[in-house]
Amino acid sequence: MIMSKTILLKNRPQGTPQNSNFEFIEEEKPSPKDGEVLLRTKYVSVDPYLRGRMRDEKSYIEPFEIGAPIASAIVAEVVESNNDRFEKGDFLTGSLEWKEYQTSTAENLRKVSSDENSLSANLGILGVTGLTAYFGLDRIGEPKEGETLLVSGAAGAVGSVVGQIGKIKGLKVIGIAGSDEKVELLKSKFGFDASINYNKTEDLAAAIKEHAPDGIDIYFDNVGSYTLDAAMKNINRLGRVINCGAISLYNETEKPTGPRLETTIVKQSVKMQGFIVSNYQEHFPEGVKQLSQWLNDGKLVKEETVVEGFDSIPQAFIDLFEGKNKGKMVVKIY
Amino acid sequence: MIMSKTILLKNRPQGTPQNSNFEFIEEEKPSPKDGEVLLRTKYVSVDPYLRGRMRDEKSYIEPFEIGAPIASAIVAEVVESNNDRFEKGDFLTGSLEWKEYQTSTAENLRKVSSDENSLSANLGILGVTGLTAYFGLDRIGEPKEGETLLVSGAAGAVGSVVGQIGKIKGLKVIGIAGSDEKVELLKSKFGFDASINYNKTEDLAAAIKEHAPDGIDIYFDNVGSYTLDAAMKNINRLGRVINCGAISLYNETEKPTGPRLETTIVKQSVKMQGFIVSNYQEHFPEGVKQLSQWLNDGKLVKEETVVEGFDSIPQAFIDLFEGKNKGKMVVKIY
Repeated sequence: MIMSKTILLKNRPQGTPQNSNFEFIEEEKPSPKDGEVLLRTKYVSVDPYLRGRMRDEKSYIEPFEIGAPIASAIVAEVVESNNDRFEKGDFLTGSLEWKEYQTSTAENLRKVSSDENSLSANLGILGVTGLTAYFGLDRIGEPKEGETLLVSGAAGAVGSVVGQIGKIKGLKVIGIAGSDEKVELLKSKFGFDASINYNKTEDLAAAIKEHAPDGIDIYFDNVGSYTLDAAMKNINRLGRVINCGAISLYNETEKPTGPRLETTIVKQSVKMQGFIVSNYQEHFPEGVKQLSQWLNDGKLVKEETVVEGFDSIPQAFIDLFEGKNKGKMVVKIY
Repeated sequence: MIMSKTILLKNRPQGTPQNSNFEFIEEEKPSPKDGEVLLRTKYVSVDPYLRGRMRDEKSYIEPFEIGAPIASAIVAEVVESNNDRFEKGDFLTGSLEWKEYQTSTAENLRKVSSDENSLSANLGILGVTGLTAYFGLDRIGEPKEGETLLVSGAAGAVGSVVGQIGKIKGLKVIGIAGSDEKVELLKSKFGFDASINYNKTEDLAAAIKEHAPDGIDIYFDNVGSYTLDAAMKNINRLGRVINCGAISLYNETEKPTGPRLETTIVKQSVKMQGFIVSNYQEHFPEGVKQLSQWLNDGKLVKEETVVEGFDSIPQAFIDLFEGKNKGKMVVKIY
């Protein structure tokens, strides 16, 4: 009998997630019913937004239930098929559960190239991550050549793509990250014009001003909190703030407070806009096409942190909040 | 010799403006040079945004200088003309100084109808106030029939027009104001569906929820601070917040703090956007035409609080922060 592991949400994290919030169970590998495929998980995406689904709170997506499997974006191989659309050996991607094996009708999954080198890109630069960078910057940021773009979480999955697209669009790009190694990477690998290590900066607003004496036109925010405050002190008239995430606040147990931003918003005619990538779902083909083209042309560089083994999934997720990833964090199962 | 009074900024207000921040001087009535008109001030607009210009701070408009005259929107009569474009008896409007008489090249002034009944409307519903309501709601709010609109400062100059335009556009309109009399006026005169007296409400967020159980799609914010927080607790997915003003913060001497809003902005895909009406300057003719038509058709009702006498200008301005006005506050000089 072949067994298959599943990872359940054991209890809701208080503050930073711990391994003890997750539970592993083993069940017999399932068999696909008529119309179903049996999938073997190949790559698992771990993402900061999953922290939000672990809270028992209304959001744009249902919270995970205690005792039920976690789900995220996954690339999986079809190992048996009772479904006309897919055959053994195909690779599919979409939202799936943290299981070694699972069955699916595959209704919301799409087939991807089985080229080993590009499989994980479907979870990153050609997947939700790349599309988040692309649509956030394009649709909310409305970038114009010659403008200045600031990106926080700049060495992360989304931020590293945002900065690269910014350069393609002719912007001056400044990144904020949390280590000397990352800050160097932003310039050497992703072509950022300047970068700031926030862990070595006493006055972040002043550091931004030093690199952007004429102010910031677009701020792509993955972090929130103090980083957002510092960006707002440098925002230009008619500036755009793309509120993509607020990782600095996801593990807060108290309601966080900070300076009120509404006077700056009024005085400077600033737009702050939050989004989730599925707001642009109908335009995904456009996004994937553009990102693939830039990737093939060598204008976009893929950066991944790959962790190995099904048992590593929870720790890989936890490590996101320590910034242990460079680029997209994925777990390779086999 | 005919004398003419001028009101100067004597010193910068600390907290709420006081009469002692202003100084009256008298000078001889000036004579117009070649190409100039001599203007006699008829109506003076007092507006919350002038408080910002009394600070020594960078903003979208230069601060007033200490010892120099205050300026605001004014309707004035041409009493002498050495300018080909205008003749004695014409009424002009635009940004002018708080003076009984002044000369001007009239370059940035425009002629308005001399009909006594509509003169003051050029400072209100057909002027900056009406245009602020119109463009803010239309361009940032992007209202769709059947949506729910919340307005703060709802009995004020801008708010009362916003709510009425909301009704014309087929929205459900809820207003927040500061007295029973105003709250009644919102429903009886301006056609709001519901209204809340914040001075009699312990939990503003709960009061909003009571009137808008399905949440708020558009929030037109004139107030900021706690009122904004309460609105954000009720904001729907893809909601729009129009940051028009933050009168509750204009007199603050400390940097105000409050709950961080970025997680709500991200989770609910909210757009918060500040503006000043001059962002839409090229479209003003469209706005004035539409507002005039609604006014003539009886779809918009004009509401003014008219204070009399040049010497009353500072007090009328100060009274804005106590909410003593209903609709547009103007000072009639003669």
